[in-house]
Amino acid sequence: MRFRAVLAILLIASLASAEDRYTEVTEALRQRGMHELGAYSLLHELTKGVGARLSGSPKAAKAVEWGKSTMERLGFQNVRLVPCMVPHWVRGKTESLVMVDTDGHETPLTCCALGGSVAADGVAAEVVEVHSLDEAAKLGERAKGKFVFYNGPMDPTLLSTFAAYGQAGPQRFQGAAQAAKVGAVGALVRSMTMDPDDVPHTGVMNYEDKVPQVPGAALSIQAANRLHEALSQGAVRVRLNLDCKTLPDEPSASVIGEITGSQYPNKVVVLGGHLDSWDKGEGAHDDGAGVTESLEALRLIRELGLRPKRTIRVVLFMNEENGGRGAEAYAAFAKASGQKAVAGIESDSGGFAPRGFSCSLSASKGRRINGWLKALSAFEAERFTFGGGGGADVGPLASLGAVLFGLSPESQRYFDYHHSDKDTLDKVNPRELELGALSMATLAWLVAEEGI
Amino acid sequence: MRFRAVLAILLIASLASAEDRYTEVTEALRQRGMHELGAYSLLHELTKGVGARLSGSPKAAKAVEWGKSTMERLGFQNVRLVPCMVPHWVRGKTESLVMVDTDGHETPLTCCALGGSVAADGVAAEVVEVHSLDEAAKLGERAKGKFVFYNGPMDPTLLSTFAAYGQAGPQRFQGAAQAAKVGAVGALVRSMTMDPDDVPHTGVMNYEDKVPQVPGAALSIQAANRLHEALSQGAVRVRLNLDCKTLPDEPSASVIGEITGSQYPNKVVVLGGHLDSWDKGEGAHDDGAGVTESLEALRLIRELGLRPKRTIRVVLFMNEENGGRGAEAYAAFAKASGQKAVAGIESDSGGFAPRGFSCSLSASKGRRINGWLKALSAFEAERFTFGGGGGADVGPLASLGAVLFGLSPESQRYFDYHHSDKDTLDKVNPRELELGALSMATLAWLVAEEGI
Repeated sequence: MRFRAVLAILLIASLASAEDRYTEVTEALRQRGMHELGAYSLLHELTKGVGARLSGSPKAAKAVEWGKSTMERLGFQNVRLVPCMVPHWVRGKTESLVMVDTDGHETPLTCCALGGSVAADGVAAEVVEVHSLDEAAKLGERAKGKFVFYNGPMDPTLLSTFAAYGQAGPQRFQGAAQAAKVGAVGALVRSMTMDPDDVPHTGVMNYEDKVPQVPGAALSIQAANRLHEALSQGAVRVRLNLDCKTLPDEPSASVIGEITGSQYPNKVVVLGGHLDSWDKGEGAHDDGAGVTESLEALRLIRELGLRPKRTIRVVLFMNEENGGRGAEAYAAFAKASGQKAVAGIESDSGGFAPRGFSCSLSASKGRRINGWLKALSAFEAERFTFGGGGGADVGPLASLGAVLFGLSPESQRYFDYHHSDKDTLDKVNPRELELGALSMATLAWLVAEEGI
Repeated sequence: MRFRAVLAILLIASLASAEDRYTEVTEALRQRGMHELGAYSLLHELTKGVGARLSGSPKAAKAVEWGKSTMERLGFQNVRLVPCMVPHWVRGKTESLVMVDTDGHETPLTCCALGGSVAADGVAAEVVEVHSLDEAAKLGERAKGKFVFYNGPMDPTLLSTFAAYGQAGPQRFQGAAQAAKVGAVGALVRSMTMDPDDVPHTGVMNYEDKVPQVPGAALSIQAANRLHEALSQGAVRVRLNLDCKTLPDEPSASVIGEITGSQYPNKVVVLGGHLDSWDKGEGAHDDGAGVTESLEALRLIRELGLRPKRTIRVVLFMNEENGGRGAEAYAAFAKASGQKAVAGIESDSGGFAPRGFSCSLSASKGRRINGWLKALSAFEAERFTFGGGGGADVGPLASLGAVLFGLSPESQRYFDYHHSDKDTLDKVNPRELELGALSMATLAWLVAEEGI
């Protein structure tokens, strides 16, 4: 009994001193980070100096250069590129959709090509409206020779906009393939947003083997509502022009840099976001935020001299948006390195004020994290959801044994900007972005110091 | 022992059924509220139909009419006005501040009069810079005949922007009076914001008895930085013109309406925000948000048929910004009514996504609230800070025994817009505003149903 009592006292003492140490770290991070707002400076460089940077484009190549030179400038160690081949889709100059009435009168509907779509050279057909892939599948003969118009909205009653995206998104991802299966000539998809304006939101769509490739376009919410209204009056004929195309794959790379661990340099905590973006806007929230939060987190850890026991490595993943090739290549690199993948912490949900993290562990296995919540509450980022994923880019690290985390910022405004011309620097608040960086820095430091 | 066991089982059963009931309520609120986004529709009416509504102005009178007719339209009971006299300050048309160099060359600095300031008819003087009231007090003879320039910034390292406002704010509130005490001719105050743009932010300033009234103006951050830079080169002379004035007090009113309690109609839970605003922008976040969240909360409670045991009363307070006369008059009205003031729940921190509430109870006295956190977490509003206030308008209800609560939304962007031309409807996200309304509805319903 006496031995156990001593142990308990030692345990309490060590917990108290651990908490004090955590508070010292979060205080130092807060003082430095909120004063300097370094994440926003980096985001300014990336959005205004590089801009939109779709995989395979010259801008994506410029982003890779920027990532590498930035890491070198920030004093990261072992800065290098992890090469991968990426798809190279180009939007082209023509994107038009018009409703054509029986007199030949044309009414334009604001649209844009979905990423990966084949071209449409004046494809004219009637429109049939559905609200899900299932409904499209059941159209059978009624879809033949027509456009399938996927008009299922994101469910506004879901609190998490990501949950609403998860429900409505398959219309965009697989809508064209499903349309082709029932003999349609193309897919028109209501933009994945809840902002009822006239701006279309692009994003990836996928074809299937042995299914004809028909074009896919996103309509702005106002255009979708107009088309819906016209359909409620009777048959509607539209004509679609898209001159997008897919070129041969291009060589590209993810960018990595690190601070090596003081005790276990071969145990690696990955911190990252994706370097590519869609070709609209400036890729500010998606995912300039994740890139610059990760860079800023490691910059602060380094400059504050918080050298933790395990290595913290920033990975700026290439090609999250339309292929995930950078994530695959990095996982292969990590596996071949012989190092241990401890954790992957991803930010790809926008540069809004943080709320917490998702975590791949179950609540019972993640119990150690309870001791970290107070530290994370310094940045109001202590809300954990267990048993989920961390994000598309760190996902492949699970098979190497890494615990996955995803930063969860306030989600309400994300899809107002996502994949559209509106995703620009002015939509990011410098303090909210920095708080994301500080939350990432805190979690990365805790995992790298304590293990998991 | 057996008796206690039975009691324990009954307690657990009643707790479980209470939680189920809470979940039913928050589910119903979520479904209806997020679908209809009623708070935003109301905010559209108030900001675009009425606009800025400074106490004593014709627009404030229009806002009172709007508040009353809106409550009647929404089917609230006992809708009425609680009259009060309010200050009537008018900005006027001329607001200019220029730096005048020795050659007579003039460089304009963007400024606006602080609310309540006397006019300045081409007051020309040198400038002396300080960073706090204390520093101004210590100027002594050095301030005589000069402008005191209060250039103490809001501390960016504080996570809560309200804490930073609390620290820097006294420069604005008392800066002119303090300047006059050391013989200065006026006060120039760095705007209370962290957004480094060229927009000045107004707000109340107070004079003191027996101290000369000298003019006070707010400089945009860019203007403050320019003036600071000029001062670092040598003496700077400026000239200030303001044609603002204070007219006689005007009659006005707060607006109240309620749903009477099913069991204790004389026990009243107040839910409110302030109806007046500054004369810049549209008073969207400050405090159109609080007004419309309160109205929407009671609308939903009523339309969902959730008639709670105690009365819930919405109070749209007049004159929070420059007098608090509506709050005083309402407290006097409540006292005279003979009804019991159970709680006051205020929203006056912007229409951003809610995080939780402040509460006037100590953590130990507020233990009952722990049983409500799960319900509030439905809207991610379960962060409570105990031992604080609820806000300026519900404050006077404390002396009547009311427990005070203040909605705490995400605070990072509030002072970007606060009291400036930028506080317009487009800065409010409809979903974030609705989540505020749903959090207010949940807390009001819990207090009205369960007591506290």
